[in-house]
Amino acid sequence: LGTVAAATKSLRIGLIPADGIGREVIPAARRVLEALGSDLPKLEFHDLLAGFDLFTRTGTALPSETIHVLKEECDAALFGAVSSPSRKVAGYSSPIVALRKELDLYANIRPVVAVSPNPEGKPSVDLVVVRENTECLYVKQETMTQTDSGREARATRLITERASRRIGRMAFELALARPRKKVTIIHKSNVLSVTDGLFRETVRAVPTLPEISGRFDSVTIAEQIVDSAVYRLFREPEIYDVMVAPNLYGDILSDAAAALVGSLGLVPSVNAGDSFVMGEPVHGSAPDIEGQRIANPLAAIRSAALMLRHLKYEDAANRIDTAVDHVIRDGRVLTPDLGGKSKTDEVVEAVLRRL
Amino acid sequence: LGTVAAATKSLRIGLIPADGIGREVIPAARRVLEALGSDLPKLEFHDLLAGFDLFTRTGTALPSETIHVLKEECDAALFGAVSSPSRKVAGYSSPIVALRKELDLYANIRPVVAVSPNPEGKPSVDLVVVRENTECLYVKQETMTQTDSGREARATRLITERASRRIGRMAFELALARPRKKVTIIHKSNVLSVTDGLFRETVRAVPTLPEISGRFDSVTIAEQIVDSAVYRLFREPEIYDVMVAPNLYGDILSDAAAALVGSLGLVPSVNAGDSFVMGEPVHGSAPDIEGQRIANPLAAIRSAALMLRHLKYEDAANRIDTAVDHVIRDGRVLTPDLGGKSKTDEVVEAVLRRL
Ligand SMILES: CC(C)[C@H](C(=O)O)[C@@H](O)C(=O)O
Ligand SMILES: CC(C)[C@H](C(=O)O)[C@@H](O)C(=O)O
Repeated sequence: LGTVAAATKSLRIGLIPADGIGREVIPAARRVLEALGSDLPKLEFHDLLAGFDLFTRTGTALPSETIHVLKEECDAALFGAVSSPSRKVAGYSSPIVALRKELDLYANIRPVVAVSPNPEGKPSVDLVVVRENTECLYVKQETMTQTDSGREARATRLITERASRRIGRMAFELALARPRKKVTIIHKSNVLSVTDGLFRETVRAVPTLPEISGRFDSVTIAEQIVDSAVYRLFREPEIYDVMVAPNLYGDILSDAAAALVGSLGLVPSVNAGDSFVMGEPVHGSAPDIEGQRIANPLAAIRSAALMLRHLKYEDAANRIDTAVDHVIRDGRVLTPDLGGKSKTDEVVEAVLRRL
Repeated sequence: LGTVAAATKSLRIGLIPADGIGREVIPAARRVLEALGSDLPKLEFHDLLAGFDLFTRTGTALPSETIHVLKEECDAALFGAVSSPSRKVAGYSSPIVALRKELDLYANIRPVVAVSPNPEGKPSVDLVVVRENTECLYVKQETMTQTDSGREARATRLITERASRRIGRMAFELALARPRKKVTIIHKSNVLSVTDGLFRETVRAVPTLPEISGRFDSVTIAEQIVDSAVYRLFREPEIYDVMVAPNLYGDILSDAAAALVGSLGLVPSVNAGDSFVMGEPVHGSAPDIEGQRIANPLAAIRSAALMLRHLKYEDAANRIDTAVDHVIRDGRVLTPDLGGKSKTDEVVEAVLRRL
């Protein structure tokens, strides 16, 4: 994992709820962090703005102040969710995509684990999607031209050796720390032989890099073409341990994996770079349930745990995860997405009681 | 649907088994077609070559002879499956991608239907993926450059108004013929506002085209962002009727949908243009079971039915589909992928008995 030095005096965390239920789940995660007491240094929170709502009010989706505070005054951050405009809006561009790039958070790490007994009796799943977070189609280099037969739009998909190598390395490090020690490379090099060919070949070559010298000898390498990877994810999820993928495939795969464990409301992630980490639940802003106080806070709470783990506060992270697992297994205090009847706050309180 | 005139004297079908189990399932589909007797004109088959095996033997994956015979001497075709090289092979390029482009088969139509009682008790699914078949990243315009920090690969993703309009129109036509009459547009315009923005906007506008004049008034339009579309496909497949998607999303979505109905071995497709149709099972060449005579022939047989339906031989198509449904529901003669113990030929014979 990236090595972020533990803060000396206090741990400074930027909170960016952004849109929709992001504004309900980020405060929930904050309450849990505040309850950890002496397992953490003194906490210092910075409330920061971003989002589509902000854009519609002020014309900017990601104020430079937010980026500045994150870079200069924070050790880590928690991000909520962004809404997507229902039609193209001139000048708007997703703040989460921009943040990942601005802070060079090159790895999006999304562990998907079924807590048994799983709410829906789905097959056992214990995998982590390691998604490249800075390039692929997300470079957003798009052009439009007018021709005699209508408009033609083009987007550039960028895959570099450098980004493929560092995400590959992150995947191997994560695999090394897991019991099954297996990395599955996801690609579509049967069609995209140059771009996905480079990704596949570069990730495959990570264990042979001179500076690695045998470190990953115990890690098994497998690969899957993306379409069949999704198929097999649903048929035989147990074949996967660490899945490493270019940006867009990783985006789709992590949602697919989330469906297997009962709810997107359970899946956490961190956006990690070499010197900063930002937790982010995988779910979206869920405008359909916004304001009803029934948003599932567990993905955001788990994202806070994952953020702490990345900062090497293992004990605090374990306390959160154990409490969340307990609440899910117990099954009495769950939000409606998991078949329960509880409110966001009641779930938070159930977690706090188990901390 | 595209209007392909029924052949006058005979129906001329190109058979392109290509690789792996393609060579087992295409002969199976042929046997079923031959058994239809007077429901079809006299059949004339052309055995045609393509594939990765052919490439390794001869240096060409898609002989010009194959394209020539398809264009000049066939009314339709059945394609098996292609193997993918396990590393980049200079000069090799997927023959199925090339065939779709050469014959301008712009729509890949993939109906995914759970036959109840479904072998695995999965939720009820009755949808069709309408995949754009000629552009997106499949234009295969890729470049590689060397920089100071390593290699950089780029691919172009092309989305045109013309191709989006014709695939959109195909989706609306299909929806019109179905009870639920709903089209869901799949895109990622929250990131790809220009390319996917064009796709989404163009498909949305199909019902307002002057030449349409109210034809699609009864069709409902919905949309989903691709990652959440895959998630919801697994959680609530019943929300989907016709899903229309750019090429790569359609590729992934149709495999995902196949996982819902128990096996890729059940999902048929046609590659359709305005003047030619080519049936193709959605499954791959399955090198792991090649030659064991246990490949599931049902997707290829259903692809033959779909091909006939496209050519307006509705009665013959219905006979095949009814026989296949019967064999699946009966459950006694199934290949191992569906939990059975039967061989390919035994399944074919079970279908023939029910025709
Ligand atoms: C909101 C969107 C830009 C984002 C993405 O595509 O990365 C989301 O789907 C995610 O997975 O975090
Ligand atoms: C073999 C491959 C080129 C092909 C594709 O990506 O279209 C396959 O996955 C399919 O879905 O027909």
